[in-house]
Amino acid sequence: MNELINDLITRGKFFDARNEIIKMNVVDIAQLLEELEEDNSLMVFRLLPKDIAAEVFSYMSYEQQQFIIESIADKEIKNIIDELFLDDTIDLIEEMPANVVKKVLKNTSETRRKLINQFLKYPDNSAGSVMTIEFIDLKKEMTVKMALEHVRETGLDKETIDVCYVIDSNRKLQGSLPIRKLILSDGNVIIADIMDTNVISVYTHDNQEEVANLFKKYDLVAMPVVDNENRLVGIITIDDVLDIIERENTEDFHKMAAMAPSEEEYLKTSVFDHAKHRIIWLLVLMISATFTGNIIKKFQGLLQSMVSLAAFIPMLMDTGGNSGSQSSTLVIRGLALGEIEFGDIMKIIWKELRVAIVVGLTLAGVNFLRLYFLEKTDFYVALTVCISLLVTVIAAKVIGGALPVIAKKLNLDPAIMASPLITTIVDALALMSYFSIARLLLGIS
Amino acid sequence: MNELINDLITRGKFFDARNEIIKMNVVDIAQLLEELEEDNSLMVFRLLPKDIAAEVFSYMSYEQQQFIIESIADKEIKNIIDELFLDDTIDLIEEMPANVVKKVLKNTSETRRKLINQFLKYPDNSAGSVMTIEFIDLKKEMTVKMALEHVRETGLDKETIDVCYVIDSNRKLQGSLPIRKLILSDGNVIIADIMDTNVISVYTHDNQEEVANLFKKYDLVAMPVVDNENRLVGIITIDDVLDIIERENTEDFHKMAAMAPSEEEYLKTSVFDHAKHRIIWLLVLMISATFTGNIIKKFQGLLQSMVSLAAFIPMLMDTGGNSGSQSSTLVIRGLALGEIEFGDIMKIIWKELRVAIVVGLTLAGVNFLRLYFLEKTDFYVALTVCISLLVTVIAAKVIGGALPVIAKKLNLDPAIMASPLITTIVDALALMSYFSIARLLLGIS
Repeated sequence: MNELINDLITRGKFFDARNEIIKMNVVDIAQLLEELEEDNSLMVFRLLPKDIAAEVFSYMSYEQQQFIIESIADKEIKNIIDELFLDDTIDLIEEMPANVVKKVLKNTSETRRKLINQFLKYPDNSAGSVMTIEFIDLKKEMTVKMALEHVRETGLDKETIDVCYVIDSNRKLQGSLPIRKLILSDGNVIIADIMDTNVISVYTHDNQEEVANLFKKYDLVAMPVVDNENRLVGIITIDDVLDIIERENTEDFHKMAAMAPSEEEYLKTSVFDHAKHRIIWLLVLMISATFTGNIIKKFQGLLQSMVSLAAFIPMLMDTGGNSGSQSSTLVIRGLALGEIEFGDIMKIIWKELRVAIVVGLTLAGVNFLRLYFLEKTDFYVALTVCISLLVTVIAAKVIGGALPVIAKKLNLDPAIMASPLITTIVDALALMSYFSIARLLLGIS
Repeated sequence: MNELINDLITRGKFFDARNEIIKMNVVDIAQLLEELEEDNSLMVFRLLPKDIAAEVFSYMSYEQQQFIIESIADKEIKNIIDELFLDDTIDLIEEMPANVVKKVLKNTSETRRKLINQFLKYPDNSAGSVMTIEFIDLKKEMTVKMALEHVRETGLDKETIDVCYVIDSNRKLQGSLPIRKLILSDGNVIIADIMDTNVISVYTHDNQEEVANLFKKYDLVAMPVVDNENRLVGIITIDDVLDIIERENTEDFHKMAAMAPSEEEYLKTSVFDHAKHRIIWLLVLMISATFTGNIIKKFQGLLQSMVSLAAFIPMLMDTGGNSGSQSSTLVIRGLALGEIEFGDIMKIIWKELRVAIVVGLTLAGVNFLRLYFLEKTDFYVALTVCISLLVTVIAAKVIGGALPVIAKKLNLDPAIMASPLITTIVDALALMSYFSIARLLLGIS
């Protein structure tokens, strides 16, 4: 398919190419246009039917959208903006540089401009900022027949109308009603009698993460958004929720690897921005690691009289860090999915303690066998290393399990309590116990 | 609301409680029943209307489901299983112990049992294993009026019918048609003329991760599943895709913290299972860390003559590990979201190299100022530490960025190339360069 289109375009047969292209899915058309040369891409885009063009436009990258708006005439822009969903228009305006925004707003009707301004006021990450206004509201006193008539009049052919919302004369949300139920019901039935009054809704200022959690909990495909007076102002659809979930997950991955979270794609982020996102935590953790170094300094005399002890430092530090990050990751993820809450902290500590003993004894055992029998290390040195290992694993797992829950309780993001921070704490503990045990068992000071 | 119900139940007024409960959302009813005492929970459950009971049942935890099946009579089980969606029944059978499965199958009709057996054969994580058969298929020669009639006859009131699928006389998939489009179209129009022939479908054996990616790419709410002959056999709905996405993310979090991935909730996993998921990687990484220890051993003479060098080991190791895990996390996430592919490897290395130089120079600079001016460390020692730091950060970032892409190319899971493994490799490199530079600059051997 794509080869045929490419061939047609190369030979300048744009109309033939267009006729092939409009058979494709709009997402694929958007991708195809990104891959074409700029001139060809623009030419093909302008030949697309108005409604398809707007849909294709909404699936383009911001770079491509900007290029298109900068290249086409005002009238063409108006055609696209008229067809575009309000939430896509808002996204566009938030991402584009000022000159492009100006060009877009100039070609937007007065009413729509007012709406846009209202939407731009919703705080980032709020339900209001992700909702759309393309939905169908039914009056509760309507009959099914009237409702179907109303749906037909609106003529909105989008998945946003698969569920209609029922309001009273003050626009207050009363219930929800899937379109399929309209089909399955008798024409004379009153909407109020068949609507679901148990409708899950959110306020415009609610956080998008809460919204995503409600979608997951109640298996929703759409959810109404109301203002403070419970008046219906918009809806959020599942496709936007998917984006929210992936974004939240990405943020957690970034934070857990000690970075400032970023929404931008890896390859599209500049070197300077990459460095900016990473440097702060690296600096903080580097400085705190020097405290760990100070512990070694403090025990320098001991190390001087038995320098072979230094060879076990990496193993102790790494194993402690890994043990701790296993526990913190499990707990952070459990908190994010709502499976764990603060009240569970004692259960977590108790579980981690037992897991740590099982895991720690195994590791220490394997290590002792290796050191004493394979490497013929001195018995007391091997014992020192293995006891330190056990102590380290236990401390790492208990701290790794508890700290994220405590962070959450203190309204901090649990994800920042992930491996890097835990590692630094555990490192210090590991070295402290290692040298103390060495002093005790080996009789050196 | 909940207090009222609790009060009614405590006073033994189960019928009154039931009348309050059936006003609630089924997800909340399931949660309420989990919180009640077993006897009360069972009593309330039995009083629920048949259709609500089945829905509530599908939202219960496996423990609660097992308790219910073990406690109620065969006839009651049949009522639930008859109402349950096929995919929920499959989930149930896969999770329950043999005696419960027997009880369930005994109360399932012959036809349904055959279907269940067929579904159980689909490999884990395949599209076939997550699809459901509760959907509506239309013939392409039907008129809109006939199609609406067909929808009404089926009477399925579930979001799975918001999109209907069009098949030919051999059950081969021809197109899709949202129910809303049926409403918006004239009754005499032929289905084949208004259906979308551009339908995205998957094969039963396709991986569920691919399915999730298609849903995200094309903003779908449902997707048809076909067999090898392109015959429609089931559909996958967005709520199952949400579960898949969260499960895949959890798996990645686990793998990136060096654990065998587990689907079970943290608190519900036994100590032994926790230990089992964590021990293998800890052992592997512990053994490999001893190689790092061997590097220290090799340079023992150097360390003996200048034991103060040991104090900088934790800082070098930690900063290297953190730098590497930042890069690997970004790349692993980019791969998971489909933003990065193998062809980008040179771009990644080039980007990481430049980021590493910016970040590394900053860190080394800050460190040098601290060491030389604040701590009055010897100039050459400070220089040794800072050059080693720069080298370590560069190595860590380039390796951290490249390894996950290479792993993906080799059909390994990129997530296992995350922080712990990178850390171990980077540790060795850090110590090696540290001691080599020390030998060079400080003139000790």
